[in-house]
Amino acid sequence: MSKLRVAVLGARGRIGSEAVRAVEAADDMELVAALGRGDELETLTESGAQVVVELTTPASVMDNLDFCVRHGIHAVVGTTGWTDERLAQLNTWLADSPETGVLIAPNFSIGAVLTMRFAEQAARYFESVEVVELHHPNKADAPSGTATRTAQLIAEARRKAGCAPQPDATTTALAGARGADVDGVPVHAIRLRGLLAHQEVLLGGEGETLTIRHDSLHHSSFMPGILLGARRVATTPGLTFGLEHFLDLN
Amino acid sequence: MSKLRVAVLGARGRIGSEAVRAVEAADDMELVAALGRGDELETLTESGAQVVVELTTPASVMDNLDFCVRHGIHAVVGTTGWTDERLAQLNTWLADSPETGVLIAPNFSIGAVLTMRFAEQAARYFESVEVVELHHPNKADAPSGTATRTAQLIAEARRKAGCAPQPDATTTALAGARGADVDGVPVHAIRLRGLLAHQEVLLGGEGETLTIRHDSLHHSSFMPGILLGARRVATTPGLTFGLEHFLDLN
Amino acid sequence: MSKLRVAVLGARGRIGSEAVRAVEAADDMELVAALGRGDELETLTESGAQVVVELTTPASVMDNLDFCVRHGIHAVVGTTGWTDERLAQLNTWLADSPETGVLIAPNFSIGAVLTMRFAEQAARYFESVEVVELHHPNKADAPSGTATRTAQLIAEARRKAGCAPQPDATTTALAGARGADVDGVPVHAIRLRGLLAHQEVLLGGEGETLTIRHDSLHHSSFMPGILLGARRVATTPGLTFGLEHFLDLN
Amino acid sequence: MSKLRVAVLGARGRIGSEAVRAVEAADDMELVAALGRGDELETLTESGAQVVVELTTPASVMDNLDFCVRHGIHAVVGTTGWTDERLAQLNTWLADSPETGVLIAPNFSIGAVLTMRFAEQAARYFESVEVVELHHPNKADAPSGTATRTAQLIAEARRKAGCAPQPDATTTALAGARGADVDGVPVHAIRLRGLLAHQEVLLGGEGETLTIRHDSLHHSSFMPGILLGARRVATTPGLTFGLEHFLDLN
Repeated sequence: MSKLRVAVLGARGRIGSEAVRAVEAADDMELVAALGRGDELETLTESGAQVVVELTTPASVMDNLDFCVRHGIHAVVGTTGWTDERLAQLNTWLADSPETGVLIAPNFSIGAVLTMRFAEQAARYFESVEVVELHHPNKADAPSGTATRTAQLIAEARRKAGCAPQPDATTTALAGARGADVDGVPVHAIRLRGLLAHQEVLLGGEGETLTIRHDSLHHSSFMPGILLGARRVATTPGLTFGLEHFLDLN
Repeated sequence: MSKLRVAVLGARGRIGSEAVRAVEAADDMELVAALGRGDELETLTESGAQVVVELTTPASVMDNLDFCVRHGIHAVVGTTGWTDERLAQLNTWLADSPETGVLIAPNFSIGAVLTMRFAEQAARYFESVEVVELHHPNKADAPSGTATRTAQLIAEARRKAGCAPQPDATTTALAGARGADVDGVPVHAIRLRGLLAHQEVLLGGEGETLTIRHDSLHHSSFMPGILLGARRVATTPGLTFGLEHFLDLN
Repeated sequence: MSKLRVAVLGARGRIGSEAVRAVEAADDMELVAALGRGDELETLTESGAQVVVELTTPASVMDNLDFCVRHGIHAVVGTTGWTDERLAQLNTWLADSPETGVLIAPNFSIGAVLTMRFAEQAARYFESVEVVELHHPNKADAPSGTATRTAQLIAEARRKAGCAPQPDATTTALAGARGADVDGVPVHAIRLRGLLAHQEVLLGGEGETLTIRHDSLHHSSFMPGILLGARRVATTPGLTFGLEHFLDLN
Repeated sequence: MSKLRVAVLGARGRIGSEAVRAVEAADDMELVAALGRGDELETLTESGAQVVVELTTPASVMDNLDFCVRHGIHAVVGTTGWTDERLAQLNTWLADSPETGVLIAPNFSIGAVLTMRFAEQAARYFESVEVVELHHPNKADAPSGTATRTAQLIAEARRKAGCAPQPDATTTALAGARGADVDGVPVHAIRLRGLLAHQEVLLGGEGETLTIRHDSLHHSSFMPGILLGARRVATTPGLTFGLEHFLDLN
């Protein structure tokens, strides 16, 4: 079987250089280009890249994708900063290249994506749901973006299913004890030296609880998701937003 | 809206009496009969029961279901002891009553069902998977039936997806340290005073782990699943095996 | 060996009736009296009780202890509502009966007592410490008294050891996300159907974390501590406050 | 206050180079020498080192300590391979230099040391105790040395306190399900990609459980223990074996 020809853009960054190594280590892939700032995009076509892994910056991602889509090169995109305008622009380009696929994923950690998905699915079947996220103490925001997003997905799933508000008989509380309220879902943020990035979704019903916990110990956790994306994007024309759409959850 | 007319068979047993209370407490249900050993099945038809919750014994479940299906009463069945022959017999009866639905579930705990389902879905995306079950020390079998079943589902999902065997460099081990081998999935059984019934599925990949934990603290945890089954079985003709088929996991 | 002669006061209450059963089940004890509201205290002397387990109410505890101390009966006390005045009064009585011992314990769960003790001991050796308590959603106060007390003990231990304030780079936070501040220790309260009473102390330092978790699943967890108290109080004259003083932690 | 003058032996190794950085970063220490293979020990005396951190190999540790003790330089030793003969030899040297202190520690992680200590202290107060250790799948031995040592300490504490054997009604078991038996304490070893080194001690009694968990995410976790050792060894003449003796656990 011929190998998938993959190029990495942003190859000298922290995640990019990891992606270079991951592609090189994959049996079914060949790394045909690894470009950094200032390198020519033409290298992509010259090298015969079938899929590009785009890990650059919001400032350069649009030019890079314009080039890829025009040349029928599929793209797996980890760069952030997506607005409705940018997505609309990208869709216009893709309309002119109907066989090309682009996957944009805010999170390439399969564990994080599954945690959100499972939390969303389970949320309607339990009376109570809370989210706890735990990070190193150098983090500036609380709660984390992932925890906030998880809570929003949970709240939306419960709204759709017509769930009652969560039971909570608290009448006397110290300020902050019950966490932050994200659409009716309490979210608690722990900051502890020695931790990296962790999240727990606790669901409770009559006589039982279900806990879904994700521990992220290294950004190498993004690599399996990036490789999975690269393998599937070539056969998924158009724009896909979110790695969960590439997971077979049946 | 008219209430669902529900009867309980085995109403004087431990789980049955709990089911009686749960039906009575449900806003959308009316308890129309609660039968124990020796009571007449005709009470079911006289009371106008639409759904029967069957929580008796393997010795009486077939007669009870024969009666229910003949009279077009749907059934939610927690009684165990199902063989291929019994299922075939039940299907024959159902063929003659095509609008009647029967749900048989080995486990009515939604948390347990979701744990197995999520473990099965996630299994192919991680290099390593192990199962830990924790119970009170009066339990006779190790590992638990649920843990064994969970490991089998995981193994099957990995086989289908073509996963490599799990990495394990162990060369020196005390007997038993690495747990029981269930189809290639290590399963560990902990017995501890103070515990009831708990299960953890640990999944690990490059740089991250995902843990799904179910804690069962009381057999009242079966009630939400039984009520959910009663609500849906009336609109699901034929035989359904496993509560997971009644959960909306999309 | 002769058995310890034990009486229970408040024997018809929830905890008291459990204590009656626990004393009866203990090989080294004999239950000589089980008194409830309205029963005569003279039964204690007539029955030859050596130790009384006092599980009544703040309204009757002082009269009961006055009687016990006067008659040289040792007491293990679970009744709450202790003020400085009450303790002073009790000490006066004990001064006149120098061989009598009284143990008052706010918490008879050995697990809870050890959790607090270990948290206190470990607190100075880690940069970060947070407390998470998890309870059923019918609880009125947040955080729990035990969690608040644990956080205070941690804060005091760190102050004595001259620890620096905990690192926390949070600059953007949703209100409540970082929990309640108890003397500089963040405390988070989770309320979840299906839970009973649980507490976790998380300690984090460079490259490692230590977690101490206590799960209380039934008030029967008080019994081993009550029995241990009954065994030791007879040889510990005077007033002892807190079960931790009866644990050998060397 | 004058700074403590510290030298590192084995300064070019993985742990040694980390120790060099840790000493440099400590406000109350001055790094006066950092020696690797082939460097002259005389540098230690010339640099005025008060304390040496010894992180070399079993082949060179004895010569290094002979030199240090003869010159009155205190030592904190992480090198392994200690036999009764070696310890006896070291004690002979120390007898001739009565003011010099040497700390040998099999484990400098404060979290690991506290986990063992707390497990040992709590063991007698619970009916059931089991140990679960979780490591990356490249580990060759199962269970880990730390888990085996922890189980032995637990077993010894229970023996001393006259505890009954652990309750376990298992009559039907898959081989390995109940873990390895270390002096009557079940030990379970989990191997999972994404993990580093983790250990959990589970203690269970009537109605409650206590869990002590240590997560080691980086060998930098040894540094606080090494620095603590360096600070205290100068005022602790003679041989100390085990970091726990330098922790104030009262």
